[in-house]
Amino acid sequence: MSSLNIVARNSKVFAAQICRNQQFGASNRHASSSAKVGFVGLGNMGGHMARNLMKNGHPLIVFDTVPDSMQAIKKEGATLASSPQEVASTVLLEQLASVLTGATLASSPQEVASQTNLIITMLPASQHVLDVYTGSSGILGSVQKGSLLIDSSTIDPSVSQQMAEESTKVGATFVDAPVSGGVNAARDAGLTFMVGSPDQSFGKVKEILDKMGKNVVHCGSVGTGQAAKICNNMLLAISMIGTAETMNLGMKLGLDPKLLAKILNMSSGRCWSSEVYNPVPGVLDGVPSSNDYQGGFGTALMTKDLGLAQNAATATQSPTPLGSLSHQLYRLMTNSGYAGKDFSSAFQFLKQQDKK
Amino acid sequence: MSSLNIVARNSKVFAAQICRNQQFGASNRHASSSAKVGFVGLGNMGGHMARNLMKNGHPLIVFDTVPDSMQAIKKEGATLASSPQEVASTVLLEQLASVLTGATLASSPQEVASQTNLIITMLPASQHVLDVYTGSSGILGSVQKGSLLIDSSTIDPSVSQQMAEESTKVGATFVDAPVSGGVNAARDAGLTFMVGSPDQSFGKVKEILDKMGKNVVHCGSVGTGQAAKICNNMLLAISMIGTAETMNLGMKLGLDPKLLAKILNMSSGRCWSSEVYNPVPGVLDGVPSSNDYQGGFGTALMTKDLGLAQNAATATQSPTPLGSLSHQLYRLMTNSGYAGKDFSSAFQFLKQQDKK
Amino acid sequence: MSSLNIVARNSKVFAAQICRNQQFGASNRHASSSAKVGFVGLGNMGGHMARNLMKNGHPLIVFDTVPDSMQAIKKEGATLASSPQEVASTVLLEQLASVLTGATLASSPQEVASQTNLIITMLPASQHVLDVYTGSSGILGSVQKGSLLIDSSTIDPSVSQQMAEESTKVGATFVDAPVSGGVNAARDAGLTFMVGSPDQSFGKVKEILDKMGKNVVHCGSVGTGQAAKICNNMLLAISMIGTAETMNLGMKLGLDPKLLAKILNMSSGRCWSSEVYNPVPGVLDGVPSSNDYQGGFGTALMTKDLGLAQNAATATQSPTPLGSLSHQLYRLMTNSGYAGKDFSSAFQFLKQQDKK
Amino acid sequence: MSSLNIVARNSKVFAAQICRNQQFGASNRHASSSAKVGFVGLGNMGGHMARNLMKNGHPLIVFDTVPDSMQAIKKEGATLASSPQEVASTVLLEQLASVLTGATLASSPQEVASQTNLIITMLPASQHVLDVYTGSSGILGSVQKGSLLIDSSTIDPSVSQQMAEESTKVGATFVDAPVSGGVNAARDAGLTFMVGSPDQSFGKVKEILDKMGKNVVHCGSVGTGQAAKICNNMLLAISMIGTAETMNLGMKLGLDPKLLAKILNMSSGRCWSSEVYNPVPGVLDGVPSSNDYQGGFGTALMTKDLGLAQNAATATQSPTPLGSLSHQLYRLMTNSGYAGKDFSSAFQFLKQQDKK
Repeated sequence: MSSLNIVARNSKVFAAQICRNQQFGASNRHASSSAKVGFVGLGNMGGHMARNLMKNGHPLIVFDTVPDSMQAIKKEGATLASSPQEVASTVLLEQLASVLTGATLASSPQEVASQTNLIITMLPASQHVLDVYTGSSGILGSVQKGSLLIDSSTIDPSVSQQMAEESTKVGATFVDAPVSGGVNAARDAGLTFMVGSPDQSFGKVKEILDKMGKNVVHCGSVGTGQAAKICNNMLLAISMIGTAETMNLGMKLGLDPKLLAKILNMSSGRCWSSEVYNPVPGVLDGVPSSNDYQGGFGTALMTKDLGLAQNAATATQSPTPLGSLSHQLYRLMTNSGYAGKDFSSAFQFLKQQDKK
Repeated sequence: MSSLNIVARNSKVFAAQICRNQQFGASNRHASSSAKVGFVGLGNMGGHMARNLMKNGHPLIVFDTVPDSMQAIKKEGATLASSPQEVASTVLLEQLASVLTGATLASSPQEVASQTNLIITMLPASQHVLDVYTGSSGILGSVQKGSLLIDSSTIDPSVSQQMAEESTKVGATFVDAPVSGGVNAARDAGLTFMVGSPDQSFGKVKEILDKMGKNVVHCGSVGTGQAAKICNNMLLAISMIGTAETMNLGMKLGLDPKLLAKILNMSSGRCWSSEVYNPVPGVLDGVPSSNDYQGGFGTALMTKDLGLAQNAATATQSPTPLGSLSHQLYRLMTNSGYAGKDFSSAFQFLKQQDKK
Repeated sequence: MSSLNIVARNSKVFAAQICRNQQFGASNRHASSSAKVGFVGLGNMGGHMARNLMKNGHPLIVFDTVPDSMQAIKKEGATLASSPQEVASTVLLEQLASVLTGATLASSPQEVASQTNLIITMLPASQHVLDVYTGSSGILGSVQKGSLLIDSSTIDPSVSQQMAEESTKVGATFVDAPVSGGVNAARDAGLTFMVGSPDQSFGKVKEILDKMGKNVVHCGSVGTGQAAKICNNMLLAISMIGTAETMNLGMKLGLDPKLLAKILNMSSGRCWSSEVYNPVPGVLDGVPSSNDYQGGFGTALMTKDLGLAQNAATATQSPTPLGSLSHQLYRLMTNSGYAGKDFSSAFQFLKQQDKK
Repeated sequence: MSSLNIVARNSKVFAAQICRNQQFGASNRHASSSAKVGFVGLGNMGGHMARNLMKNGHPLIVFDTVPDSMQAIKKEGATLASSPQEVASTVLLEQLASVLTGATLASSPQEVASQTNLIITMLPASQHVLDVYTGSSGILGSVQKGSLLIDSSTIDPSVSQQMAEESTKVGATFVDAPVSGGVNAARDAGLTFMVGSPDQSFGKVKEILDKMGKNVVHCGSVGTGQAAKICNNMLLAISMIGTAETMNLGMKLGLDPKLLAKILNMSSGRCWSSEVYNPVPGVLDGVPSSNDYQGGFGTALMTKDLGLAQNAATATQSPTPLGSLSHQLYRLMTNSGYAGKDFSSAFQFLKQQDKK
């Protein structure tokens, strides 16, 4: 394993001191009879997921989707690595850097594919998946026969199916395995994976995903993992906006918000959004609504997932009137300054007048 | 207590054999050191509620909102009462008749008010409440000072407040106490009451409602009981249609409905509708969707409650985009043959094409 | 007639110099063989309408709906009247004051009714109409038999019908005659009146309304004038938001807004909003969108009319999915700082992001 | 010009008697100093468009998108051609066959491209355009340098742009030119073409399109023709459903439908749908609503166009709440038996209850 203990994402440079890294790496290494894993996409989620694989003894070869920042790291070389404080700007950065020490840095997804037959990808959107798999230096360009390719990105189910077809042509197996649970669940290996895969591949898929999550659910053939994910998020968006409307209406009618939440939660109106993620500030502790809607799951990301749901609904001619209106409302919010706030800020958007 | 052991509703005549009734009445009477209660509105819900009061030893004086059928009963007199089988057409009828034996029949709400200072009303809609309280032979026409008037109807909160003002003028206290839970909960004394009342009255209100329900929640001042009820039902409607859309979309994308429900219920999309009242036939046993949408909570009733929510939203200038669209969709369903089906038939409405 | 040539509305005081007023009044008086007309409600619309009646030689007896400001005027007496500049704060004020000189000021709607049998009312909402007609000092308290009562307010059709019933009981005829066309049309006697009246009354109604408008349409029995008005405004709201969505989408797709408007207007997408009131700044001259959405028909007023439409839709069980969603969107806008802007500012609301 | 006077579409076979064809062909030939045009896609619209080109003296080489039916025709050969009555099953068929006589039949789009440098395509959806241009025997496989390729299909603007890029690579110019106006406008050369093309190409584009339509509008760069088309149809769908809601509500409130239409059309609610295509049976003559919603523009086709609008709105992050809800409502209608009815049947869908 090289001394290039570095991972990069989005023009930010992650690195860590060699000595600290190697110590940490060493303490993990006893378990590393485990298979080498390729990991492409080391963002907020992927970074934590990769770290959990290393903790379980898997040697990693990694690549991130931002070629420029990768190049920058390679050029800066050892200097950079010996002085992480100069470039590290966030706690997350240090966490990742300290843990990913020991991973091998690849120059392209293709290089990843040439060095291991078990690859996990975690990317922002359909276009990135297309690039990483079928681009000019993509995985399928040098994938080994019999490889297992697990994509945990949330993308259009039809793109997953297209990638599976392309993979089959070159003798590899592609499965979709999007996650639910946010950054904290990724960090704590508490994710739920929704897997679309051939029956005969699921055992092997589950074996590796178990190291990053607590639930690994086989949803059916390729694409059904994505289907389950976007279905869940569409219903989540609907019930969140519904909860926000309901709480706001009740408060205007004179109800105390904590009392109203209690009544809903003991009645037929209860849902995850009313019970454990209530959008009204002060009703629950430790949720984004009580922290000015910081953290959590951003409105822009929810808007993206609802766009995927609408594409799937159009493709299958499925009527989704509330899902569609929720998409529009989150789009309005994204356009009105809520893009970076947690999606529970729908409450703030609806009651808005108090701010003016 | 007279031998007119009769209750009527909606042009149906309810009665029971004098001998059986008197026996039953006698067996209850031992407990009747309890206060005499007036009960107006003996429909599907009110009949069971009144019965539970009698079981707890309260003598009753009753009236129903359909004057014509009341008149019919009075004219037919003893003959009718001695031959209940001739007029009884439903099991419910017999149940009610056998239990309400012992209740005194009043000729008007005003008469009820002249004979007791504790009155409960359970009526279909705002207009009935206006009639029963402020009509020409209404309760407020002869209410005793210090009376407690509890309205369990689901109506416009502003009508509740108007009734409270009118009651105050004549020295009585009006509270709103709508219920959640359906006919079965009414029968089994398992209702939840959401009470809007002055603080000082709540103790007495709870004492009597405890005999008909398992939860009695003080929501705030008059009108807040209605507010809580219509808020819950609006969120229920939204999450039910959302669940129906989501299950239909997932199934079209190739997911097994039971598996999809399981995934939603372990994730952030879960809600009462997905967990305990799933709208897809075959996912759960013992729910209306698995019985051709028979029983349960009818689409027309849900449409009515959503109309109340929209009125309240308009009065308070509260935006409710999903609540409003849900109202429209249930109205479309009501107009399209779903009026009498359970409100979970939204699933059937959305996938409809399979029927053509 | 006194020298108190004054009309007041909403805490603003309208008055004019005696000398100027009397001159002006004199010049009008030659035509006043016409019938005396009672006019209640002298706001932005009603003030101009009353003026047009005076121009046609009708003596007026007037009252406004804000008793407090009326009282203030009476107390201040002649001083006030001799010094209108001290209290006048708007051009409108001066216009009205100068023209309404000659009208008799009544102390209540009841007084108006006692002095003429032809009364026109122009009020903000249903509650004001209820007060002015059936309140403790309302018109129906001293209405003369055979009176014709014309209400030009935009209110709930069922309230119009209720007023007609109450009027019939006391021997008077009530008709609804809401208007379309804004303040400028009121000023220029260019309004359209939509009249709900008995057939035999329409001739007399039209004769007086012709002096304030250019179109007087008989819509049917009482309430149908309101019905026509709220139907038109619901469709207007839908097509305005639809135009705003469409123009915004087209511009984002690279189309020039003037060209897009031209294409729509020669195609099946054309509507009044795209042709003569385009919501995109710069497409048309002389419309609110080209004047920072000042003037025109305010979003809050449109929201009110859409609330009437929704009430009527609920009462008649008519599905109005787009009308309902338009109501919600205008409510969101009203809550978000657009209340006083022209309703074509829906375009600004949708594209909003450019402002952040 | 060959004697294969045949055109086929969708498993139907079009042909005409040799003698009649040749006569007709001859009578046209005098004008054929005009350029030879390739035409791909001879359906309800394309057939008429091609005929109008021939009428103007353009020799044609044609291909339809259904290879199987083309093969069938080729195999049947002269026998078929001499006996068109045996296979012709519709009036349309005879019209087309008689006029297209004289066209050369190509075996693939690629063959069309090899024989002319001016090609028009008129196809059902994006996928067909992709196939016809970039498929294995597609136009771009043998296109001549300097060719002008005009696509009149209604498709995703981004697909138009993609085709333009691919065309540029091989030295050809691709423009989008979707049409408005239905089958009758196609037959009578009364179409409106919305053209997205480079400025320098528009003159040549207009010259040929003028022979098939009465308006040829330059909308901007490639893709803007599609943008204008889907914008128009989105606004059309919104105003049609809005008109249907409004007419239904007004009728329930007691208004005569013809009178209501008249009032709307002289007021701010007027739109193309209320004026010239009113969805209420009996209001206008000669429109689909007065012919049981037969003919016109089918609900399924409108649903398709609204899907394109939603895709474009998602791609550009443009909020389209009413456009999105209209899409959902037309999808519900498509799923509920209205797929083949004119899109004005939205009125029937909303009032539906009268049918049960």
